[in-house]
Amino acid sequence: MKLNKKRALSLMMGLAMGFGASSSAYSQASLEDVMKARGLTQKDLLAAAKTYTPTGGRDEYLVFASGGQSGQVIVYGIPSMRILKYIGVFTPEPWQGYGFDDESKSVLAQGRIKGKDITWGDTHHPAFSETEGEYNGRYLFINDKANPRIAVIDLHDFETKQIVVNPFFKSAHGGAFVTPNTEYVMDAAQYAAPFSDDFVPLEEFNSQYRGGLTYWKFDDKEGKLKPDESFTFELPPYSQDLSDAGKNASYGWGFTNSFCSERYVGGIERGRPPFEAGCSQKDTDFLHITNWKKAAELVAAGKVEKVNGSYMIPMTQAIKEELVYLVPEPKSPHGVDVNPAGTHIIVSGKLDSHAWVYSWEKIQKAIAEKKFEGKDPYGIPIIALKDALHTQVAVGLGPLHTQYDAKECTVFTSIYVDSMVTKWDYCEGKVLDQLHIHYNIGHLMAMEGDSVTPDGKYLVSLNKLAIDRFNPVGPLHPQNHQLIDISGDKMQLLYDMPLPLGEPHYAVAIKADKLKPVIRYKSGWDSRADKRSAYRTRAGREKVVREDGMVHVYGTVIRSHITPEIIEVEEGETVSIHLTNLERAQDETHGFAIYGQSVNLSIEPGKTASYTFTAEKAGVYPYYCTEFCSALHLEMQGYLLVKPKGYQAKEGVMEEGEQYTKADYEKQVKTNIETQAVIDSVVAFITSHNFKDFPPVVALVEDATEQLGFADESKKKAEAFAAKGDYQNATLWAGQWWQYQVKTADMGLRAKTYLEQNGAVKVESK
Amino acid sequence: MKLNKKRALSLMMGLAMGFGASSSAYSQASLEDVMKARGLTQKDLLAAAKTYTPTGGRDEYLVFASGGQSGQVIVYGIPSMRILKYIGVFTPEPWQGYGFDDESKSVLAQGRIKGKDITWGDTHHPAFSETEGEYNGRYLFINDKANPRIAVIDLHDFETKQIVVNPFFKSAHGGAFVTPNTEYVMDAAQYAAPFSDDFVPLEEFNSQYRGGLTYWKFDDKEGKLKPDESFTFELPPYSQDLSDAGKNASYGWGFTNSFCSERYVGGIERGRPPFEAGCSQKDTDFLHITNWKKAAELVAAGKVEKVNGSYMIPMTQAIKEELVYLVPEPKSPHGVDVNPAGTHIIVSGKLDSHAWVYSWEKIQKAIAEKKFEGKDPYGIPIIALKDALHTQVAVGLGPLHTQYDAKECTVFTSIYVDSMVTKWDYCEGKVLDQLHIHYNIGHLMAMEGDSVTPDGKYLVSLNKLAIDRFNPVGPLHPQNHQLIDISGDKMQLLYDMPLPLGEPHYAVAIKADKLKPVIRYKSGWDSRADKRSAYRTRAGREKVVREDGMVHVYGTVIRSHITPEIIEVEEGETVSIHLTNLERAQDETHGFAIYGQSVNLSIEPGKTASYTFTAEKAGVYPYYCTEFCSALHLEMQGYLLVKPKGYQAKEGVMEEGEQYTKADYEKQVKTNIETQAVIDSVVAFITSHNFKDFPPVVALVEDATEQLGFADESKKKAEAFAAKGDYQNATLWAGQWWQYQVKTADMGLRAKTYLEQNGAVKVESK
Repeated sequence: MKLNKKRALSLMMGLAMGFGASSSAYSQASLEDVMKARGLTQKDLLAAAKTYTPTGGRDEYLVFASGGQSGQVIVYGIPSMRILKYIGVFTPEPWQGYGFDDESKSVLAQGRIKGKDITWGDTHHPAFSETEGEYNGRYLFINDKANPRIAVIDLHDFETKQIVVNPFFKSAHGGAFVTPNTEYVMDAAQYAAPFSDDFVPLEEFNSQYRGGLTYWKFDDKEGKLKPDESFTFELPPYSQDLSDAGKNASYGWGFTNSFCSERYVGGIERGRPPFEAGCSQKDTDFLHITNWKKAAELVAAGKVEKVNGSYMIPMTQAIKEELVYLVPEPKSPHGVDVNPAGTHIIVSGKLDSHAWVYSWEKIQKAIAEKKFEGKDPYGIPIIALKDALHTQVAVGLGPLHTQYDAKECTVFTSIYVDSMVTKWDYCEGKVLDQLHIHYNIGHLMAMEGDSVTPDGKYLVSLNKLAIDRFNPVGPLHPQNHQLIDISGDKMQLLYDMPLPLGEPHYAVAIKADKLKPVIRYKSGWDSRADKRSAYRTRAGREKVVREDGMVHVYGTVIRSHITPEIIEVEEGETVSIHLTNLERAQDETHGFAIYGQSVNLSIEPGKTASYTFTAEKAGVYPYYCTEFCSALHLEMQGYLLVKPKGYQAKEGVMEEGEQYTKADYEKQVKTNIETQAVIDSVVAFITSHNFKDFPPVVALVEDATEQLGFADESKKKAEAFAAKGDYQNATLWAGQWWQYQVKTADMGLRAKTYLEQNGAVKVESK
Repeated sequence: MKLNKKRALSLMMGLAMGFGASSSAYSQASLEDVMKARGLTQKDLLAAAKTYTPTGGRDEYLVFASGGQSGQVIVYGIPSMRILKYIGVFTPEPWQGYGFDDESKSVLAQGRIKGKDITWGDTHHPAFSETEGEYNGRYLFINDKANPRIAVIDLHDFETKQIVVNPFFKSAHGGAFVTPNTEYVMDAAQYAAPFSDDFVPLEEFNSQYRGGLTYWKFDDKEGKLKPDESFTFELPPYSQDLSDAGKNASYGWGFTNSFCSERYVGGIERGRPPFEAGCSQKDTDFLHITNWKKAAELVAAGKVEKVNGSYMIPMTQAIKEELVYLVPEPKSPHGVDVNPAGTHIIVSGKLDSHAWVYSWEKIQKAIAEKKFEGKDPYGIPIIALKDALHTQVAVGLGPLHTQYDAKECTVFTSIYVDSMVTKWDYCEGKVLDQLHIHYNIGHLMAMEGDSVTPDGKYLVSLNKLAIDRFNPVGPLHPQNHQLIDISGDKMQLLYDMPLPLGEPHYAVAIKADKLKPVIRYKSGWDSRADKRSAYRTRAGREKVVREDGMVHVYGTVIRSHITPEIIEVEEGETVSIHLTNLERAQDETHGFAIYGQSVNLSIEPGKTASYTFTAEKAGVYPYYCTEFCSALHLEMQGYLLVKPKGYQAKEGVMEEGEQYTKADYEKQVKTNIETQAVIDSVVAFITSHNFKDFPPVVALVEDATEQLGFADESKKKAEAFAAKGDYQNATLWAGQWWQYQVKTADMGLRAKTYLEQNGAVKVESK
């Protein structure tokens, strides 16, 4: 029954080689059999071929979708429609340690509303940072509608780095939209409210409640929004909605639509018709046109006052300085979309059946000639529709949002009420194609569709209802994103993707090769502050320090142990545990949790993460690594011992569960020598092949070499203890030596398999 | 420029009909072109055909995976590998309102650890409720390792209903495993600790620290675990790990494995070899065999004492009553798996290369004959390996977990270190096939693989590392679940699925047709308590009541308004808002958020959800529906007005933003009459076809009819105001009448499209 480890390793390798080749044979079932059994049509098969991505394959585009009420951002690939990541933004998320480690808690703390923690967000419209109107792949912005905030996600590590709170608004659905060089991020108020925090009765709605539009200044170098340099337009109490920044021809201007320009206040419980009736009574609402370039100059010139510490441009000043204009737009619209050339602007109203195309040339002319049809009740000049309109096109009932194709003049508009997408020509004003979706599409998204050079190719329909599309999972349904092929004249539905968490409202897609995220941090990195952590530690330098009335634990994690393994504190002490992941290997994340505490750290290679708490009650608290990192992951454990105040240790040494002898030591050493022979044979295989032509194998070899170095350190310890006749420690360190050998073998065998499966060839020996 | 609504609706319908047919044409690009462009092989195409699921298609199996450190449970479909839902379990999740509404907060509160809120969990092993060893599709159990808890998820609505806290353990990785009739849910301790909450020094590890195994009693009728009727085995301070309940031949018994039976305590920071060395030194650990049936009888007979209110069977009693035995098992195992017949038990050690197959017949014989090779240090009888073993099979290095095929004697074992799956025959003891996976598989899962009648067909490899399998998304990688076709002799890799959130450790798959989740609740339902809510309200009965020093708002939500639309309270008042969703339509969920509060409610059809808070500061707080429920979703809003204490309202009525005249009223009525004609034509289309043969259409027609009923109510109000000469209200109610018509048209058009696309035929008029 005894196991010969060499035989075990060799046998396993033999098996791997023996079966490796034969397992590449595939089923005898023919394609036709499978199609028949699964009821697939030829059209389905074509869609499958257009979306299926074999193991290791890459997606052409990455989509960043708002997570709606989940408060997160969702990343998925096109065309595979596989979800790659949920990024914690406004909501704590333990798998990522987001809102659990001290570092990310400080990001979430930036988003407090009047000192109160808000542990969720209602994310709506993500936007990429841009350079000359092109996505540059550096940052993503996302808004919270419920508590008006904007978050900045750094695409070099897909982490949220900053949250800013709007200084004036009480809701902000209409963010985030960027200007062509990310000079500013636009964020419009939704439900009108007083700019102050005071109570103001609804009877004073028209005079005291306000809408608005904030231009958040962005510092591209720092990767931070700058509240001190941002400014807000005071606007009438219409419900401002989405925006788009002018580009090319219309660079320097912003466009913001609105609903409820009736300024209706409901009250169905007191017999008044509800908001929905009063806010949709007029045939038109107002498109707001703002001159952000000129406004920024006024701010820079010191001509704009600060209110409660933030620049605010009152309506009177904006009108006087000719910064703001209105144009009628179809009622209850959702989305204003500037074409890549910046010459046309499309707005659709959800209760209209036409998309309205505006001419920027005409609008400019009216502004230049001061040709207005009047003013709104707040004195803002209104450009007559006839002086702004290029054309109106009947696209279907409930049009919402428009995306531009790579092909000039071609656009796609989502049609909510009739559940379809309409493809049309906005130059000629004619419908080209229509496709039913399932069901009730909100936004839609084409590849790089908000940039100055849209790619076309694919379109995603972000449907608001899934109803019967998927296996039932209870009263709360997943969302349904439908992938549509728009490369030909006719749109083709390719794929239905359920969204399992959150309700994405809008999404943006970027060419995958524009993103170059890191796979590891510099050692000892505070990823949220993006700098070396003051609490970093190196291997062998772990320590426990009592300072400033706190216990600071400077620890490390590596396959498969946490240093320290025992932490002793006294009841009532405040403890701050700082853990640095010493790994350099890709995907070698470690976690950390302690019984009785609400904490999980996610410590990716190089990261330093901290957790601070008060040891309230004496007791025994196991801790462990929460990420299955290695074969002995479960053994990656430790104990926090909280001693009663004034506790006096009794005499006594650790009772050993097992005693080891010289024979045990010699047996372990024999095993290790045999194991080393196996490792050597794997190394010989690898080095006799052109492994340097395979970057993943080079990385594995580096990692394996490092593990083997650790093995050598343990070997030396074992030998030193053996020399002293301490066979207890000698045996255990010899065991640890073997553990490192196993980790080495893990990497080595993975490398060997990779070479075998990827056509490595023998190289001549030198 | 004025819009004729009838023309709009008609035109839209015309377009839909005109293009409906042509959009079914598909691309001219041939399958070969696509395959070439995307680099797909014939094998890839076959895999695509086996997994691709066209719109509206259903998956054959639903998988319930633990969410690891996310604290959630993940539901996905097989073979499409599309994730359908994240169920909030231990971690608050705002999209679901979980941990945000009062009802679900009370579920999470059950999981407090010594009064402290724990806002995450480390979920590991889900298990379905069973009847005679078959999954019955009623409940799912999932454990938290970090803070030892078990949660119960009700599969009738996919919501978490109960959390229980282990009364003795400080960690519990080894849950949840159910007995064949869900009599009990097994949950084993992991890291040994004192059963009391007192501090006990590590020097007393062997004498004072303990492992254990809890059998949680489950009441299938109530759907609740019963802490009062549950019992715990005290066990030696070995790290107990996973369990499996005996079935058929071995019914009444439980099997639990362990690691670190060396009882080693590390301390690398003080020069001791780390846990990983000392916990893997021996060649074997112990498989624990417990007789739960007999133990339950002792409990029932009053022969087991309670400790701190919970039944606990001390080792001395367990030994005396012959309830517990040990058998050597391969070291550092992970998973003990009983075959469907209950005659064999397979255990693998992560540092061994063999799977060990035990014979229950032999074990029973040894027990009956009291043939033991000795006792462990705590007096538990040890059955000699030779008296228990059927065979040992070399399956590869790092074997973890075994799943049973539908075919007798055939099993699949995950091989961690060599990153592969081995298919083998445990009767004959021979390897049949091996398949490399990517990378480092932990558990694996076959269809209904834990039941007494496994289905085979598919296997999922739950890999611990993804490394290079997907587009890079930063240092923290997604997980990789690989779908494998096991229907033939050779395993075939079909699909790589990234897991975007959480690290699933184990998963279970059930035939999809065994699940019959509801799509709506009974009206006014408290879903967490599963009973009518005391706070439910019916349409027209909404009210605000001040009682018990609180303001209770009994409100409703329906497309597209919240009643009440204005809530007035005084600074300092405690407010409890209870909202009932009046919808009956599938997928018509509404949400609810208020500025300045950390709340999102997810109110599915029929549900009543509550949110209680103190109105701390006077001010204006907009609220709104967070779920895009309808065309006028954005208008589904309201205001919470918090007045300063003692505020005296000034004289004044609501300033109206717009004034409406008789002409406005008449214009609206004309529009409505025209719209009604369009609706009538849609109704005529539907009723002239065999719509009753299409259940989704019947549901839509019911919904549309309800909306039209609401339209009629608004019509009556409009006419009543018009009769009084109040054209302001008359116009607005006429607008509301039209809003309901639009909602009717939305449903009606969806129904019409469905009939057109699904081959409805004209029926003879009667």
